[in-house]
Amino acid sequence: MDTLTKPLPDYLVTRYEGWKATRYEQNKSWFRRLADEGQRPPMMVISCCDSRVNVNDLFSAQPGDIFLHRNIANLVPPYEPDGDPHGTSAAVEYAVSVLKVAHLLVLGHSNCGGVQGCADMCSGKLPELEEKASFIGRWLDILRPGYERVKDIEDEPQRLRALEQQAVKESLSNLIGFPFVKSAVEAEELSLHGLWVDIREGALLNYDGRKDDFVPV
Amino acid sequence: MDTLTKPLPDYLVTRYEGWKATRYEQNKSWFRRLADEGQRPPMMVISCCDSRVNVNDLFSAQPGDIFLHRNIANLVPPYEPDGDPHGTSAAVEYAVSVLKVAHLLVLGHSNCGGVQGCADMCSGKLPELEEKASFIGRWLDILRPGYERVKDIEDEPQRLRALEQQAVKESLSNLIGFPFVKSAVEAEELSLHGLWVDIREGALLNYDGRKDDFVPV
Amino acid sequence: MDTLTKPLPDYLVTRYEGWKATRYEQNKSWFRRLADEGQRPPMMVISCCDSRVNVNDLFSAQPGDIFLHRNIANLVPPYEPDGDPHGTSAAVEYAVSVLKVAHLLVLGHSNCGGVQGCADMCSGKLPELEEKASFIGRWLDILRPGYERVKDIEDEPQRLRALEQQAVKESLSNLIGFPFVKSAVEAEELSLHGLWVDIREGALLNYDGRKDDFVPV
Amino acid sequence: MDTLTKPLPDYLVTRYEGWKATRYEQNKSWFRRLADEGQRPPMMVISCCDSRVNVNDLFSAQPGDIFLHRNIANLVPPYEPDGDPHGTSAAVEYAVSVLKVAHLLVLGHSNCGGVQGCADMCSGKLPELEEKASFIGRWLDILRPGYERVKDIEDEPQRLRALEQQAVKESLSNLIGFPFVKSAVEAEELSLHGLWVDIREGALLNYDGRKDDFVPV
Repeated sequence: MDTLTKPLPDYLVTRYEGWKATRYEQNKSWFRRLADEGQRPPMMVISCCDSRVNVNDLFSAQPGDIFLHRNIANLVPPYEPDGDPHGTSAAVEYAVSVLKVAHLLVLGHSNCGGVQGCADMCSGKLPELEEKASFIGRWLDILRPGYERVKDIEDEPQRLRALEQQAVKESLSNLIGFPFVKSAVEAEELSLHGLWVDIREGALLNYDGRKDDFVPV
Repeated sequence: MDTLTKPLPDYLVTRYEGWKATRYEQNKSWFRRLADEGQRPPMMVISCCDSRVNVNDLFSAQPGDIFLHRNIANLVPPYEPDGDPHGTSAAVEYAVSVLKVAHLLVLGHSNCGGVQGCADMCSGKLPELEEKASFIGRWLDILRPGYERVKDIEDEPQRLRALEQQAVKESLSNLIGFPFVKSAVEAEELSLHGLWVDIREGALLNYDGRKDDFVPV
Repeated sequence: MDTLTKPLPDYLVTRYEGWKATRYEQNKSWFRRLADEGQRPPMMVISCCDSRVNVNDLFSAQPGDIFLHRNIANLVPPYEPDGDPHGTSAAVEYAVSVLKVAHLLVLGHSNCGGVQGCADMCSGKLPELEEKASFIGRWLDILRPGYERVKDIEDEPQRLRALEQQAVKESLSNLIGFPFVKSAVEAEELSLHGLWVDIREGALLNYDGRKDDFVPV
Repeated sequence: MDTLTKPLPDYLVTRYEGWKATRYEQNKSWFRRLADEGQRPPMMVISCCDSRVNVNDLFSAQPGDIFLHRNIANLVPPYEPDGDPHGTSAAVEYAVSVLKVAHLLVLGHSNCGGVQGCADMCSGKLPELEEKASFIGRWLDILRPGYERVKDIEDEPQRLRALEQQAVKESLSNLIGFPFVKSAVEAEELSLHGLWVDIREGALLNYDGRKDDFVPV
């Protein structure tokens, strides 16, 4: 690998040094305890990889607060214990069964490129995503049932927003299919939450299961 | 799903409102451009879900800076375009082929529970992780080759630290097996970086491919 | 003291800014009157320092509602005007004689580490708490009479719960030994209340002096 | 005690029921873990009993976040292991030696009645506070050295504000006199912080030990 890695860009070194001199110093005592005794986060958040969403900022998290998994379009695949590697399912299992988090939040967002990709794939605009070798396409297959539920919405921005929110609902629905999630929820040791944040306006909506709708927090 | 979701804890609502009134307001103009024109992040970071690692903080990221994938033990599986859903591979493909990020960083860390789990599984201490249905175990299989390389280190803390760094190296090695990563690296459109951060001391080490070692940045 | 204090952790600054932009703004007019005219709280609450008990939340207090003293195990020491500093007695005197609160509540709680410490000390399990220099031990001496009354309860969880409730009763009993409390109660200018909250179940019990028992509110 | 306690005012019962139906429900899973596994708060805050200061609100604390001691004028007495009950010293010992908090904040505030009382006592305006039996007076003796340092400030509001901030500094200074606090600070396992909040304006100042001054956070 000698030719593969490059020196770190200097601005990242500088920013790290700034973090070390300030935020690390401010929190040093707590980092020490967290290192020595392990993490005990009250919550897991599953959000998108999107660079415009900063989950720790959104909830002004302290070190140790949020066990954070991020993937394309904040999707949880269905429960499938087939012996293959499933990174999201492993993260959920670790959070629920090992760390025993009390809250599990799925956080979707506006302007989601992954969700747009799913819509384009399902409507035939991006046939290359249908190829077997497309990791993006095969991952977004998880959201196909959601697309079926919103495809008749004529207005495109409305259809995409609905699909972004379907991604949250689909993930919640798949989560409850994991036996260890279901039993923790039933024992009231874990509560599930669905959220969707608007990047442009900064609005945060909460999924209300009784209304089956997203409402402002 | 009417009985499955719960209202959001009030303190998260309050903290969100704080974010909206301060950080969102401070960045509103930039959030608007990012929403209207899309993200254009210079880098992707792959880190662990661990609640003690805050990647955006570490590099004082601005909105739009870091396309961030987080999974257990910051692992990238080998290239396997088998038509199954691969969340990490999808995130890498999206970052490299769609967003065309210039940098791809794999960030490991000390005191990693996932890496500890891998060591315990491979040394026979956690046989339940060997079961087919263990998502954690099947995910950590990715790091088995790394364990083979460090298993003879006698001192346990040293062995675990070496394995945490193997997780970074294994991921870099697997990354280069993705054809689109390899060609982007060869075209000098993408550079790979390996990092490891010490939670307790706040030290950041950078993988130097020529020395095949982690050295302070 | 130049080397003793550290900068405030950033997340506390952020959360404060959130409070300033939201809760402070919402209550600004009232905060101004409270600052200009002074507080006039209808009640004092004496509760434990425990991080799991949030008295202002429990009673959705508005600014100015609750004069709040919190110490280990919500204890009030006996009346002892010996010229030494007594923080709890000073707080009670300030609330009753200066502020003339109408209600004085003592709020105990389940899973109390202080009460557990008292039980362990009195039963010989924590001899270090018997040392003269143990501030925790000397403070928990206040609850020794309560321990004598419950020590024969065989079931440990029941014994601890009984002792937690003894802490409330002992404090009420000591309170009435303060002449200014007694005369205010007799003049019906002050009423005393004993409460105990279950952290796990969220139940709140009220001490009924006639039944000499704690009953659901 | 049958004639001493009174039924709880109905509005407190109603507010409690509101808390139970909302905030408790939202946090039920986390309350359960906190009850079963115990608290692990990252910080202790020592603040005044004043009804206008809500520490949990100020830092939008989640259950389990803040170990909170509140007394008149947020004072810590000097280290005096004389075998008498010292509630504040016991709370500090419990936080530092048992809970091993990483941060200890002393939070003063504007318009502090206790601090005003100290100034009035020391300047001869409230001779009754000099009596041996005055719990308030004997408690405020802790702040006498602080009064000596500010008594020559001519403007009264400025003098009182300075004395409120002396209360924070005096407490920090006394804290470091506790051997277990000193050793934890020296081991960088504990960091001390001094704060002062303006009730009217909502401003928060942080004590900067190097400047020996309070500056906006």
